Amino acid sequence: MSTLAIATAKEVFDLLHDDLLAIEREFGSQSVSSVAAITEISEYLRDGGGKRIRPSLLLLSAKSQGYSGEAMIRLGAVVEMVHTATLVHDDIIDAAETRRGRPSANTAWGNSKCVLAGDWLYMQAFRTALDERNFRILDLLIGLTQQMVEGELLQMEKLGSAIGEDDYNSLIYRKTACLFEVSMRLGSVLAGVNGRAEDAMGEYGRALGMAFQIVDDVLDLTATEETLGKPVASDLREGKATLAVIHALENGSPVEREAIQTVLSARNFDLVTHPEIMSILHRHGSVDYAMNMAFQYAETARSSLTGVVDSEFKRALLWVPDFVVAREK
Amino acid sequence: MSTLAIATAKEVFDLLHDDLLAIEREFGSQSVSSVAAITEISEYLRDGGGKRIRPSLLLLSAKSQGYSGEAMIRLGAVVEMVHTATLVHDDIIDAAETRRGRPSANTAWGNSKCVLAGDWLYMQAFRTALDERNFRILDLLIGLTQQMVEGELLQMEKLGSAIGEDDYNSLIYRKTACLFEVSMRLGSVLAGVNGRAEDAMGEYGRALGMAFQIVDDVLDLTATEETLGKPVASDLREGKATLAVIHALENGSPVEREAIQTVLSARNFDLVTHPEIMSILHRHGSVDYAMNMAFQYAETARSSLTGVVDSEFKRALLWVPDFVVAREK
Repeated sequence: MSTLAIATAKEVFDLLHDDLLAIEREFGSQSVSSVAAITEISEYLRDGGGKRIRPSLLLLSAKSQGYSGEAMIRLGAVVEMVHTATLVHDDIIDAAETRRGRPSANTAWGNSKCVLAGDWLYMQAFRTALDERNFRILDLLIGLTQQMVEGELLQMEKLGSAIGEDDYNSLIYRKTACLFEVSMRLGSVLAGVNGRAEDAMGEYGRALGMAFQIVDDVLDLTATEETLGKPVASDLREGKATLAVIHALENGSPVEREAIQTVLSARNFDLVTHPEIMSILHRHGSVDYAMNMAFQYAETARSSLTGVVDSEFKRALLWVPDFVVAREK
Repeated sequence: MSTLAIATAKEVFDLLHDDLLAIEREFGSQSVSSVAAITEISEYLRDGGGKRIRPSLLLLSAKSQGYSGEAMIRLGAVVEMVHTATLVHDDIIDAAETRRGRPSANTAWGNSKCVLAGDWLYMQAFRTALDERNFRILDLLIGLTQQMVEGELLQMEKLGSAIGEDDYNSLIYRKTACLFEVSMRLGSVLAGVNGRAEDAMGEYGRALGMAFQIVDDVLDLTATEETLGKPVASDLREGKATLAVIHALENGSPVEREAIQTVLSARNFDLVTHPEIMSILHRHGSVDYAMNMAFQYAETARSSLTGVVDSEFKRALLWVPDFVVAREK
């Protein structure tokens, strides 16, 4: 692992500020359609914020490997557009009413328009990527999108079930880590770097994405509704067993397992309350178990940067895993 | 226009038989996923039949311009997969209960899985096309898909309204003619033919597609439920004004216009019956008007083949417009 000092949040923010603004403008100009509903829904989704972590990773990957051209702005917008398209379709599937503290797009515009707006955003992302005239970029993006769609379908098939850790890992890879990995790989492709160096960047993205999703799933259980911008324990309410819950299922008593399974099957807390579930999880150190797993992934991410030459961008990449595991929303 | 004798249905069928079988196999092998639901839904959709008119056009375009390679099989499957993906999403949007005489996929699997299965089919179509390593092919397909998605959204915005012919033409171009055009253009690209010759093929596809959709819309009004495999006048029940209805709206008396508008707004025949609407249409020759428009488009399609050298494939292309306007379902 590098002996390079780790950056601060402010340093990383300043480092990426101008490029992220440019990506925001690119995303904005890319999501204007002759059809009013598409432009409106896209604007609503962009305004909703989000951490823009995927474009940031793409920028840091490209820049840490010596790239400084304009394509990273366009591809940064592309990965955020793919991410946004998946959110729109996921919210339809989960019948989510809120997203980031506001009504979800499907609540505001209805499912039908949102199916099509999501389709359009996928196509627009591909169209923008296609303009780069680089088959490798398209291979990565299309392979990725299929993995994400398959992941969402696998998740639907597992709803209400007490899945194991292997299934969980496979689901969160497809749902989150795969796009983090591709964002890092795209940065490599732009820098003209492939083979092992690209794989190392991909590994950073994968491990970081796993950590990110594990923390997301823990926060869903432990944070407040105000912080989350949506009801607490939404995952359990949707029948989704996440890592801490899986740990408790595997280590709890038959009565405790039964209590958790009741919530997963009923998809509500009518028979077993949220505090009851949390006390089972705490009794078995299940939240700590999940967070430890996230810390390990964060360490894997940092370790994969060994071969990268020292720079302010590498310092930032070393910082991101800390940010991801320490965040509160 | 060519003086070449026009082929018979059997000749065209024999001419394309082996290649269409190969396309069917390709579509089948392309739509196998590690996620069971995708494979099941895809298989269900493939088994549902359909006329495979888009792959047939691609084959005839390629072959009439001297191409005979394997890529036409793969791209034939691609255009059918794109078509199938749009059908799945459209049926969700229209809340269609039947398609081709069977329960629609959304009825059988639910909307959520079908949103994702449609996404997956789009991605798989692009992935297969990407394997050709030809940017022009990808430009055509991605531009097309966006047009189709925009068309579907425009249609939603016009539901229940008495639209004019311009709006109607723009809608059916995006909904149908655009994919016919792209299928013909892809055949040209494979044959290494571009410029005016490709444009002529594109024009054939566009005009044929317009004729096809106008006839489809007329049949929706005039055919029986048994022939259609879905309830008659579904378009009116969904608030969609098609060409014959638009003609009657523009030529009818205030009372007749009011009757049609009542059905479009109510989306049912409770206050004004289907026979009442049909008698208004017949009084003004509106169905004949729409069919004449289809005949004109069919003629435009045939005329655009002037520059194509005579061959059995050109003979088949000259036959297709007749088939399209004379069909009963």
